[in-house]
Order: sequence, then structure tokens, then C-alpha cells
Amino acid sequence: MVLEKVDSPGDLKALAPEELPTLAEEIRQHIIEAVASVGGHLGSNLGAVELTIALHREFDSPHDTFLWDTGHQAYVHKILTGRRGQFDHLRQAGGLSGYPSRAESPHDVIENSHASTALSWAYGMALGYQSNGDDRHIVAIVGDGALTGGMAYEALNNIGHDGVPVIVVLNDNGRSYAQTVSRLSHEVDRLRTTMAYREWRPRLDKLVSKFPYGERLADASLQGIKAAISDAPALQKFVEALGIKYFGPIDGHDVEEMQHHLAAAKRVEGPVLVHVLTQKGKGYTPAETDPEKKLHDTSAFDIATGRARSKKPRSWTTVFSDQLVRVADEHPEVVAMTAAMPGSTGLLPLAQRHPDRVIDVGIAEQHAVTCAAGLSYAGKTPIVAVYSTFFTRAFDQANLDVGLHDEHVVFVFDRAGITGDDGASHHGILDLVLTLRIPAMTVLAPSCAEELEVMLEEAVGLSGPVSIRFPKGTAITGLGVGQGLKARRLREGSDLCFLSVGDRLQATLEAAEELARDGIEAAVWDVRCVRPVDLAMLDAAAESPLVITVENGFATGGAGSFLTDRLVERTGVREAPPVLRLGVPDQYIQHGKPDRILSELGLDSAGILAATRKALGRD
Amino acid sequence: MVLEKVDSPGDLKALAPEELPTLAEEIRQHIIEAVASVGGHLGSNLGAVELTIALHREFDSPHDTFLWDTGHQAYVHKILTGRRGQFDHLRQAGGLSGYPSRAESPHDVIENSHASTALSWAYGMALGYQSNGDDRHIVAIVGDGALTGGMAYEALNNIGHDGVPVIVVLNDNGRSYAQTVSRLSHEVDRLRTTMAYREWRPRLDKLVSKFPYGERLADASLQGIKAAISDAPALQKFVEALGIKYFGPIDGHDVEEMQHHLAAAKRVEGPVLVHVLTQKGKGYTPAETDPEKKLHDTSAFDIATGRARSKKPRSWTTVFSDQLVRVADEHPEVVAMTAAMPGSTGLLPLAQRHPDRVIDVGIAEQHAVTCAAGLSYAGKTPIVAVYSTFFTRAFDQANLDVGLHDEHVVFVFDRAGITGDDGASHHGILDLVLTLRIPAMTVLAPSCAEELEVMLEEAVGLSGPVSIRFPKGTAITGLGVGQGLKARRLREGSDLCFLSVGDRLQATLEAAEELARDGIEAAVWDVRCVRPVDLAMLDAAAESPLVITVENGFATGGAGSFLTDRLVERTGVREAPPVLRLGVPDQYIQHGKPDRILSELGLDSAGILAATRKALGRD
Repeated sequence: MVLEKVDSPGDLKALAPEELPTLAEEIRQHIIEAVASVGGHLGSNLGAVELTIALHREFDSPHDTFLWDTGHQAYVHKILTGRRGQFDHLRQAGGLSGYPSRAESPHDVIENSHASTALSWAYGMALGYQSNGDDRHIVAIVGDGALTGGMAYEALNNIGHDGVPVIVVLNDNGRSYAQTVSRLSHEVDRLRTTMAYREWRPRLDKLVSKFPYGERLADASLQGIKAAISDAPALQKFVEALGIKYFGPIDGHDVEEMQHHLAAAKRVEGPVLVHVLTQKGKGYTPAETDPEKKLHDTSAFDIATGRARSKKPRSWTTVFSDQLVRVADEHPEVVAMTAAMPGSTGLLPLAQRHPDRVIDVGIAEQHAVTCAAGLSYAGKTPIVAVYSTFFTRAFDQANLDVGLHDEHVVFVFDRAGITGDDGASHHGILDLVLTLRIPAMTVLAPSCAEELEVMLEEAVGLSGPVSIRFPKGTAITGLGVGQGLKARRLREGSDLCFLSVGDRLQATLEAAEELARDGIEAAVWDVRCVRPVDLAMLDAAAESPLVITVENGFATGGAGSFLTDRLVERTGVREAPPVLRLGVPDQYIQHGKPDRILSELGLDSAGILAATRKALGRD
Repeated sequence: MVLEKVDSPGDLKALAPEELPTLAEEIRQHIIEAVASVGGHLGSNLGAVELTIALHREFDSPHDTFLWDTGHQAYVHKILTGRRGQFDHLRQAGGLSGYPSRAESPHDVIENSHASTALSWAYGMALGYQSNGDDRHIVAIVGDGALTGGMAYEALNNIGHDGVPVIVVLNDNGRSYAQTVSRLSHEVDRLRTTMAYREWRPRLDKLVSKFPYGERLADASLQGIKAAISDAPALQKFVEALGIKYFGPIDGHDVEEMQHHLAAAKRVEGPVLVHVLTQKGKGYTPAETDPEKKLHDTSAFDIATGRARSKKPRSWTTVFSDQLVRVADEHPEVVAMTAAMPGSTGLLPLAQRHPDRVIDVGIAEQHAVTCAAGLSYAGKTPIVAVYSTFFTRAFDQANLDVGLHDEHVVFVFDRAGITGDDGASHHGILDLVLTLRIPAMTVLAPSCAEELEVMLEEAVGLSGPVSIRFPKGTAITGLGVGQGLKARRLREGSDLCFLSVGDRLQATLEAAEELARDGIEAAVWDVRCVRPVDLAMLDAAAESPLVITVENGFATGGAGSFLTDRLVERTGVREAPPVLRLGVPDQYIQHGKPDRILSELGLDSAGILAATRKALGRD
């Protein structure tokens, strides 16, 4: 095996060029086996094998700085920097992170984060290195999707205008980019007729002919690559207008060609963008042919078929997805919006049924939310489907463009609460803190699948801003449904009163049952609608000697803090019962399985029970 | 007077072209007199007089939709839509808003907001109108500064790719833009030699010759215009690469020429950008010649000289500004950053002394913060100087790029708390909520000028993320200084315990003295460092029968909620004393003088006193 000889970038540089195709194949095999066994990001890593080899052969990491934007495509980088043997524990608690990690290696700089940040890191570092007199190259590897994010443009604008020496490697697998660009047919058509495009076309054809898939190139995945290729002149114009040199497009599976261009990029004094075309999922047929996501991220799967090993029970996302179609059928003014994640947020069934009623804006959450305000002004009811963690980027717009203008926009937060595998940056623990600071936003938290269905229908019929949050994973079912914006009492009891928010209801009910065995009778409320708060629930809670709020989000500043303040307003500060707020502590939570993390944070039934006993002095 | 004949856009359309120069002059006089008397935004409104006339003559508002980005340049629009007579009460409580306002007029759509949002509104509306079959034109008027913001690019990308009919009017006064662009000398030089530029140059010269200022054109303000002009080919390339037609540049003080191009823009089927060159402050010499801000925003002033009527006492900003120079002299690794506001945030003295140690990134808060993370990685100590309200845009980056990576970045929040004149979008009431959700960020709140000096010095010597917040206006002085991260007890008392955060200390001390006259002895702590919290303070508070937190920010989720939870952790939930959290309620706060607003919210000494008496049952 060639791979066994490579424990560092130095070992890689020592290999003969003839050994590289074998190395690439072995790396792919290593990744496929690891991800098949424990799950992870597959498509983007298979696409980046040769690119990563070329980068580590041409540059000198960690002296030169590699910045991986949205670091889930750094598996090959991890393999080439001595972490090959740790893939058995990929994304497991205590095991290898699915993202770069400074604790793991000096070759890692940006740990996990959200998209489109690497160019801003690069700009700051370039200014710093310049001031220090350091001669270190900075290489930012950015996906075509991340380039649709506004802060990437903010950074390019500064990099170009200041002429700082940053090498931007655009890893263009034609996925996010093509999706948007392909609508622009008149621009592409116009380009075909221009001189620049005619001169450039033969290079394209030569390039396409080098792709090894013959017949298969006619399929959907080629369409993406072709769209990216056709767009290159516009991209070149765009990049050059910002003051950045453009090299490309280059075959991202030809190590020699890439090394040649990267070497040239090193000699450029100012900034340069190297446009590399790769194929997502390359070398693994089930990933190449997956029409939707190229097995972008996956749970454990069967290598022969690419199919998930276990049939999954119905997820929260699917519950939302199915109900969205029903609600949209009934309400013709409903449109759904996504920031480049139509599949993951469950919008594909609606898109299939009503293609013109799903709007994908690219990785551009800020724009998505303000655009939703514009749609509402024009009489539509936009449903912004977004992971809780990515909503943080658009909070300012949700507060001012939607909230201040009282536009009727429904935010649907998927992956709200602890999410697990993707580590600190991907937990959805801020949305309650943020939405509760948007005055007059109705804030809904379903405790089970049936409640999600009821609340989505309800939300569309309300006015002004509304949010609904639910967690990642299998939907909880069968806890009953409530009505309107009212809270539900599921259990009576006079010793204490639980106010449970969203998906923590089941664990809270279990804890209450356990307490009853000790003769402690706890009332349990499903808060359902955090704002406007149900005053009947507050009045009942005020009678209790102890109130405990439970939520899957930050304990301080979230629903618990909000409910506490409303209670104090209602009773007076000295008359209010003591309130214990259970939730996520103010700390960065590393990767691991969600249930295990929730348990460690004391947010499962055992944890709720223990905290309650302690509060009662019965521990 | 011509102006007296104009109470609506219809009246404007009825005027003969010969009357327009007189109208423009009268509008300028009206604005100058109003702002001289009550303060407001001057330079940008004087620059937009002819542009606004041309827009209202060519389009049919409110059937056609005008979207004013960062609406402080809409004074002329207000005058032309029937609000001429209300300028005496501009920005006064209950009077005319300094921004568009739906409550004031059907001609207003986007109320006040942050920069760079109008294009996203436009995209959403365009999709909505299209779906409705409406034939209304959408005109978004955007400044050159706002175009440096990432979400403007996100929107242009969508508008261009979908080819939706939006007319973008780029009101380019060469200010923010030139500042950035002028660094790009090699790009400009290259352009001068290209065919496109040679063809285009004669038009430019003709245009410049039309500017009425002869000799004065040689001054600094011309440099800005020239830089903008020189950059036009790059701008054109940039805009066209995104699929948007480009018209321009056009003399923004020639109504006829603008109407001609706007009429042409109406006939374009897809999106078009009309590039209009205006002169900020035009027609009022003190504004034209103000080298820094062209009297962008100003308090009441003397019309003859343009100078403020009353000499201002030392502001918080000046205290920071002076101390920053001292700290930077002592610490060569310190660099300061701003998002297009070097003057307003107090960075000019440092820039004058060390030009290479102030970085202005444009209106790009997200990029600024991640860039700061990169600078920290390269060994610098960046100080990000930003208004509290604009920090909201960069919270995700502060949390993940700075916080998660534990980079040493010092955030300095000016205008933290109630700010007043600019209305709901500009109050700085979120920063404590947000910074306290960034684990391990040190959160400092000085109560007086001397404390700000001490804390800035302290912050530079710490590690990891740090924030310091202070309000708008005259610095409070003489409340003494504390040490390190410790709280300070300024008053002893066993009946209750005030925990005061930042600038509310003086009001809290006054309330405590008043209480003492009734025989109620209150302890008063200056919290100083909200996190890490001083445990000695918590232990003292735990002994008190009642704790009252006071802050100039949201009452729920801010420092009060944070201190409450730390107290409960320390004592146990049933043993903790009751805590009343005083702060800003969850509502949008309209414009008015800060002191008056704080009084209405119960955050002055009388309000704190009343809330305390009520809590004690002594009201």
C-alpha cells in the first residue's frame, strides 16, 4: 500500500508521481470504509482527494497556512497529516472530529464553523503576516456554495483592493453553484457568442474530454459541471473586477495540472483565485449517481449499495416536509425558502409539487430572511426553513426587516437543540435566546410530531413573525395535541411545577413519574407557545412552591429566563416562587451522539430527576 | 416659492423643467434650516436632492415601490410626499422620524434598518409582484457604502441570476467606496490602459466638466468622485458578471439626464443598475468642505459656519479614542478595526498617528470580526470598534470564529444602551444578551470615563475574547475606578442589594440615597465585569433579602438573567434571594432623546426608586 508510507506531508512529497493514482484510490477506499461504518461527510471528501494531494505536495504546511472553509471536506487533509489511523472513531465522543481541530494537529487552523468565513480569516492573517514580515503562504480552500455567502464577497473585496497575497482555491463541484447559475440562461447564452468564450471553448472541450466517465458524462452530474464551466467567464469577470487574478478552470482530478497552476499562483505577488473543477462523490458510484446530495453527509451505510444500513424511523424533518405540502396546498400564498439546503430542510416534496413555490437563495441566510420580508409585503406567506444554528447569521434581519416591520414570516428551525456529530458550531442552542428578543414574534415549540403538524397550520394563519423549532432525529409521537397558543397541563401535582419547552416533554414526564414513586407530585406543563405566554399556566405555576423550566437550548437567556420574568411581572418579585432553569450551560459542546450529550448535560429524564431532587433537598 | 406648490409627487410632475433648479435650491434650504435647528442627517440628503426629484418625476409612487437603503437619505422624499411642514419636529419624540415610516406615509416601505438590506427586500417583492401579476416597478436606492455589505451581493446574485425586474439606483457619492477603492491603484492603472476605458474616458471628461465647481474640483472631494469614476469599468464588470445591466455613470445633479436613464431602465426587461454620481453635502459649503464626514449626521448647528451650536462636553467616544492611542503606543501588537465608521467610532487619532494600524473593511461587520480572528492568529491584538447595534450582524462570527477559536479580540461597543434619535433599529440593547452567550468571553461594562480607560488597558492584557460597552453621549466621570475583574461595592446596606451594570451606576446610587432618606439601606455594587462574575459580590448579594439588577439593555436574557443564574448556582434555587431585573422591555423603542426614553422605561433614578419601592411593598 502506498498510503501506509504517508504519515506526513513530507512523506507525500517523497512519492513518485506514478504512485499518486494508487494513493488516491487508497485514500478513497479508506474514507468510504470509515464513513460506511460510522457515518460522516462523503461526497465532498471523495471529490477533494487529488486537490488535497496537490496542495500538500506544492505547499509546506503548517508553515504555509491551509484554511478549509466549512471544514467537512478536510478528511483527506487529516489522512495526509498523520491521522489516518483514527478514522474508526470519526465524530465519536472523544474521537476524531469531523472538522479540522487545533487540538488534533498543527496543520489545522479553522476548526468547525459556518460557511464562507475562510477568506476573512485569510485577509486578517495576510495583514498580520505582512506586518510581521512572515513569508508564509496562505491558501484558502473554498467551495462554490460558500462563494454565494455575502461575507465571502466582503472578504474578496478587501483582499482584492488591498492586493494582499492570498491564494484562493475555489473547489467547484458545480453543485450549489450550478443550481443557482443554471437559471441564468440568457447570460450563459450571451457569453457563448462573445469573443472571450469562443477563444476559451476549445480549452473547455479538452478539459471535459479528460473526465474519465465517457457515457456517464451525459447524466445530471455532468450538467452541473457544464453549468460551472459555462459560467467561468462570468466568474472570471467577477473576480477580476474585485482586483483578483483568475487562473482556471483546472481539472481537479489531475494532480500534475493542479500543481503546475498552484506553483504559478505562488509566484503571483497579489491575490489569485485558482478555479478547480471537481466531481462530488468521485470514485464511488452510489455517491456519484445520488441525484440530490452526492451522499454529502450520511449515516452508516452498506458499501455495495450506498444505502443506509438501518431503515430510519420518521424524522422531525419528514413530519415537517409532509405537512408543508398539505399546508401549501390549502394556502396558495405559502412559499418556502432555503439557504442552499432544500433537501436537508425537507423542501423537496413541495418543490416537486410546486416548483415555483420553493426559493433557494444560496448560502445566504441574511438575504433569505429579508427577501422573505419582501415576499410578505407582496402578500405571500414565506416559510423560511433553516437549521437553528444557521439562523444566527440572519438574526439582525429577522429582528429588523421582519420583526420591526411586522411582516408575516414563519421561521421553521430544524436541528434546534443539541445536534451532535458536527460539534460546537452546529448545535441549535441559540434560537430561543434570539427569537425571544424579537418583540411580538410568536415562538412555538412542539413536543411531538402531531404538535408540529398542528402548529405549522396554526402559524400560517397568524400574523406577524412566527417561529417553530424542533430537534434533529426521530420524531417523538403520541404525546397528544394542544390548541391555538395555549399551554397544556399533562400532569397535576402540588409539590412542584415543570414548565417543559418542546422536545424535552417526554423526559420531563418520565422524571415526574419517577418523582411520584417517592411521593413527590409534580405538575407538568407543555409550554407549547413560549410567547405570547399562556397566563393560565403562569398563574398555576405561581401557586407552586417550586418551578422548574426545561429546554433544549441555552439555560440562561432562553425560554426559562423569559418565563421567569413573565412570572415575576405577574406575581411581584418577592411573591414569585423560586425558579430553576434547566438547559444547556454557557460552554462550547463538542461532537458526540445527541442523546449522550443531553445526558451529560442533565437534560434527559435522569438528569431532570437529579436536578429536581437536589433543588428539593432530597438528593 | 416653488416648493410651496409641491405637496405630492403629482404636484412635482406638474412643474415645468425650468422650475426644478429653484425647487432644488428651496429643498436644500429647507433641509439645512431644519437640521441646523434640531440636528439630523445632512450631507447625504443634500446630495440626493436632484436624484429624488428625478425619481418622483419618472416613477409613480406608491404604485411603484421606492426602497431606500439605510433610509437616512429620505428627507427629500419626505418633503416631496407631503411632509414638508413637519420638519420642525424631526427626530423629536412623537415627531417626524429620521427614517421612512409606514405610519407616516404610504410612500414609505422600509422603515429604519441597518445598511445593505434594500436589494433583498426588492428581490422578495419582485418575486411576489411577479407571482401576483402586478406591473409595479421596484426601485431600490442604494449608497456606494452599502454595496460593500455582503448581503447586497447575496441579493444581486439572486436578482441577476433570476433576471427579476428590479431597478437598482446606485447613489455613489464616492465616500465609502473611494476610501476602499483608492487603495487599488494597480487595478485602476491597468484599467486606464484598456480599450474599454479609453473609449469611455471622453464621456467621463465631459461629465466632470459639467460639475459646477470649477477650481474646487481639484480638492479632496473631487478625488472621491474621480476614484469612483475611475472605478466604474470594474463596477460595470462586476455588475454584469452577476447578470445585471449597467447604465452610467450619470451626473446625479442633472435631473433631465437622470430621468432619461431612468426611463430607459423602465424599458429593460430584467434587472438594471443605474450608476449615479452625486456630491455629498452639495450646495452647502460647510458640508461640502468637511473633510471627514460631509456633515453626515450632526447635532443642531450655526448655518453660517456649520459648527455645532454648543461646545460639547467630552463624550464616551472621545475617552475611548484618546485611551486607544495611549494603549496602542504601549502595545505595538494592537490594531484597530472598523466597518466604515473610523470617525464615529473614534479611530481617527490612532489612524493619524499609526496609519497602518487602523483597518477599515467597509460596511462589512461579519468580515471585520472574522478578519480580527485572523489577525489574532497572526499575533496581533485587534480592537474591533463598532456600535452595539451593528455588532448584532457579526454575532455568529464573534461566537464561532473568535470565541470557539479562543482568539484574543477586544470588542469595543459604542452606543450601547438606548441611543435615541435614530429610532428602533439603532438602540444598543442586544450586546449583553449576545456576548454573554459567547462562552468564555470576558464582558466588561465601565460605569464612568476613568473606568473605561482602566478597562481598555486591562482588556489588551487579557487573553481570549473580551468586550467593553459604553453608551452614547457625554461621559460620566468621577465615580472612581476598580481593579482587574473585580466588582466594586460603593455603598453598604442590608435591606436590599443593587447590582448595577455599566452606565446605570450613577442613577442607581441616586436611588439608593433617596431610599436612605426613608430609612431603607441599600448596598450598591458596580458589577464592572459581568463575566467572569466576582464571586465575592455574589456571596454578598446572597445575604440580602432582595437583589435588584440594573442595566441599559434588554432586561430578559442580559446581565440580570446571567447574574441571577450564577447566584442560583451558588446558593441553590430555594436559598437564593428574589431577584428583580431592571432593563429595557421586549419592545421596539421609537426615536426620542435618550434621557427621556430611559426615564419612560424606568431606568433613571426615579424609575429605579419606584421599582424598588414597589418590590418592597412600600409604594
